Amino acid sequence: MEYTVHLGDFEPFINAIKQGFLFTLTIGTTDVSLIPGITIAGAKPELTHYTPAADAEYLLLGRCRVINTVPMTPDGKPTPALITRAVLRLINASVLVVNAGSRIKPLIPYVDLQGEPGLDITKSNALRRDVVERVVDNGLVLGDNLGRLSKALIIGESIPAGTTTAMAFLIAMGYDAWHKMSSASPVNPRELKISIVKRALERAGVSGIINDPILATSKVGDPVIPAMASIAIGAVKSGSHVVLAGGTQMGAVLAFIKAFDKSTLSKLAIATTRWLINDKTADLIGLIREVHPIPVVSSNLSFDDMPYDGLRAFEGGFIKEGVGAGGSLVTASVMGVGLDSIKAAILRDYRELLAMLREYPSF
Amino acid sequence: MEYTVHLGDFEPFINAIKQGFLFTLTIGTTDVSLIPGITIAGAKPELTHYTPAADAEYLLLGRCRVINTVPMTPDGKPTPALITRAVLRLINASVLVVNAGSRIKPLIPYVDLQGEPGLDITKSNALRRDVVERVVDNGLVLGDNLGRLSKALIIGESIPAGTTTAMAFLIAMGYDAWHKMSSASPVNPRELKISIVKRALERAGVSGIINDPILATSKVGDPVIPAMASIAIGAVKSGSHVVLAGGTQMGAVLAFIKAFDKSTLSKLAIATTRWLINDKTADLIGLIREVHPIPVVSSNLSFDDMPYDGLRAFEGGFIKEGVGAGGSLVTASVMGVGLDSIKAAILRDYRELLAMLREYPSF
Repeated sequence: MEYTVHLGDFEPFINAIKQGFLFTLTIGTTDVSLIPGITIAGAKPELTHYTPAADAEYLLLGRCRVINTVPMTPDGKPTPALITRAVLRLINASVLVVNAGSRIKPLIPYVDLQGEPGLDITKSNALRRDVVERVVDNGLVLGDNLGRLSKALIIGESIPAGTTTAMAFLIAMGYDAWHKMSSASPVNPRELKISIVKRALERAGVSGIINDPILATSKVGDPVIPAMASIAIGAVKSGSHVVLAGGTQMGAVLAFIKAFDKSTLSKLAIATTRWLINDKTADLIGLIREVHPIPVVSSNLSFDDMPYDGLRAFEGGFIKEGVGAGGSLVTASVMGVGLDSIKAAILRDYRELLAMLREYPSF
Repeated sequence: MEYTVHLGDFEPFINAIKQGFLFTLTIGTTDVSLIPGITIAGAKPELTHYTPAADAEYLLLGRCRVINTVPMTPDGKPTPALITRAVLRLINASVLVVNAGSRIKPLIPYVDLQGEPGLDITKSNALRRDVVERVVDNGLVLGDNLGRLSKALIIGESIPAGTTTAMAFLIAMGYDAWHKMSSASPVNPRELKISIVKRALERAGVSGIINDPILATSKVGDPVIPAMASIAIGAVKSGSHVVLAGGTQMGAVLAFIKAFDKSTLSKLAIATTRWLINDKTADLIGLIREVHPIPVVSSNLSFDDMPYDGLRAFEGGFIKEGVGAGGSLVTASVMGVGLDSIKAAILRDYRELLAMLREYPSF
C-alpha cells in the first residue's frame, strides 16, 4: 500500500483529487520559535524566522532567496520541502503560497492575507483580535475562490514552533493536547513545550475553556491556524474537498473549524507522513478522534534504503513532516505515481542540494 | 452571434476555456492618471489611485473597502467591474487579484508581484529597471503555476490612464500607436495623450526604437504591462491558452510578449467588448495586426435596451471596457450563457448599486 487510512473514509477525497487539485502552502512565524530549544527548524533561534520564506522559495524555485543558503543542516538533513517539491513536480501540480503573517516575506509571488507575525505567547497575546479577524475574513474569500477552481485543495504549512502554539490553542479550546503534539526533533522537547504553554495560558488569564476560536488564536495561537482554517472553510463552501496536509498542528486547525463552522467538517481530511504517525511521543490519531473524527491518512514512504544519512534521518525521527510533505505524497499516490518514482525524484533533488552545498553555506 | 471574431482562429481558445479557466485581474497605478483630463476613471485625479483597488474589491466582494463609496459616477455610470462580477458569478468562476504595483492596496487577498506604482512619465522614468525585472520574474513564476491549474487563463486589468502609458510604450517599441489608442471617455483626449507621450519620450531620450521591453517599460510604461505579459508567458509555457481581456492596452502587452518570448504568441488571444471595437477614435484591430496578428474577439453585448441611462451610456462610448469585462463576457458565451441571462444579471447587480447609493456616496 502506498498510504494507510487510519480513520474515516478517504474515498470521497480520492475521487475529488482525481478531478483536479491545487496545492497551497500557508506560511507564518511565531516568536515562540525564538525560545532556545523549542524547534530545530533553523540553525539558530533567530534564523527560524527565515525558514517559512525559505521553504516557500525552495518549493517554487528550487532555491532560496531570502537567505543565501541551502535548505539543509550542515550534516545534510534537508527541509521537508525537498519532498514536497519533488513530488509536486512529478504530478505537475500548481502551487500557491499564502502568507498568513511572517516576519520575513518570501521573494516570490504569494497571496497575502494581511495578517501579522505571531508574538511570543509567554510574553503577550499572539495577535490583536482585529488582525485575526482580518486573516479569517481574507482566508474565507481566498478559499471561496480557490474552491471553485478545483475539486480538491491541499493545504500545507510552514511555521517553526507551530506545534507549541497549536498545543496552547487546543488546550485553550478545551482539548487535552498536553501529551499529543509532535515535533521536528527526534527528542521531542515536551517538558519545555508544556512549560511554555502553561506560562502562556497563565499570562493570558485562560483558566476555563475559550469557545471563541478568534479569541483563543489572539491570546495563545499563531497566524497559520486561522489562515488554514478559513481557507479550508471557504473552499468547502464553494464545493471543494480539503486535505489539511500536516501533523498534530492540524488538530488545532480542525478545532478552529469545528468552532467556527461545523457544516464544513464532512469535507475535511488530514494527510501526513508515516514518520509523524510513528512518533511515539505524540498521538495525532488520538487528538483528531478527540477534536472531531475526520479521515486521517499517512503516506507509507520510507527512507530506510536511501543512500544518504541526511535522508535516513527521517527514519530516526528527524523532521517527520512539514511544508505539506505528507499531503503531497498522498496526492501523488492517488494520482498513480509509485513510491519508487517518488524516491528517485527526491534523491535527484537531494543530490542537487548537496552539490549546491559546495557553493553556498547550509541553512 | 454572442461574439464576433475579428482576426485569427479563436477555436483553440474555445476548446481550452471549455476544459476549465481561471480569471485574474491585474491592477496597478501610474501617476499619469493625476494629469487633469487624461482619464475619467475617478471623480478627481487623486481618486484615480483608488480605482484599481476599488475595482478589485467590488469584483471579489460586491462592495468597495478602500473607499466608502459606490463604484459609479453620481449620474449612475458604473465601473466596468459591474459587468465582470455579474458575468463571472453566473459561470461560478474563480478570481485571483494580482497587484502589479498600486499606490492604494486592496483590502482583500491578492497576489503581490512586488512591483511599485508607476511614476508620471512626463517627469521621470516610470519604474526602476530592477523593479520591472522583479515584476517579470514573479509574473513568470505565477503564470507558470496558474497555467498548470487550468487550460485557459483570462487576464484582465485595471489601471487608470493605462492607454496613455501603453501608447508611449508602443511608440518606444517602434509601433505606430499615435492614433489607435482608445479611452474610457466618449471624447477621447487624443491631443492630450499625444502631447504627454511626446513629452515622455523626449524626457526619456527615446528617439529610435527600443528593442528591450524591460527598458521601454522602465522609461515610459507602467507596472501592468510587464505583469500581464509575464503572467501570460508563464502560463503558456506551462500549457495554458491565455486570453488578454482588454482593449488597446493589450497591444502593449502583446508587444512586450513578442519582444520577450516569441514562442508563446500562438497561444494568445484578445477578447474585448463591442463598445471598444466601435470606438472610431481608436483602432484595436489595426494595432494588433501591426504588432502581431493574434485572434481578436469581441462580445456583442449591447445595453441599447437597458432601462437606465447609466447603462445605456456604454452605447454612447462611456467606459467601453476594463476589469476584463469583454473577456469575461466572451468566456461566459463560450460556456453557453446567453446574452439575455447576462443582461439580467448585470441589471440585478446594477440595481443593488443604485440601492447602495442611498446609503453611501458615489465614487
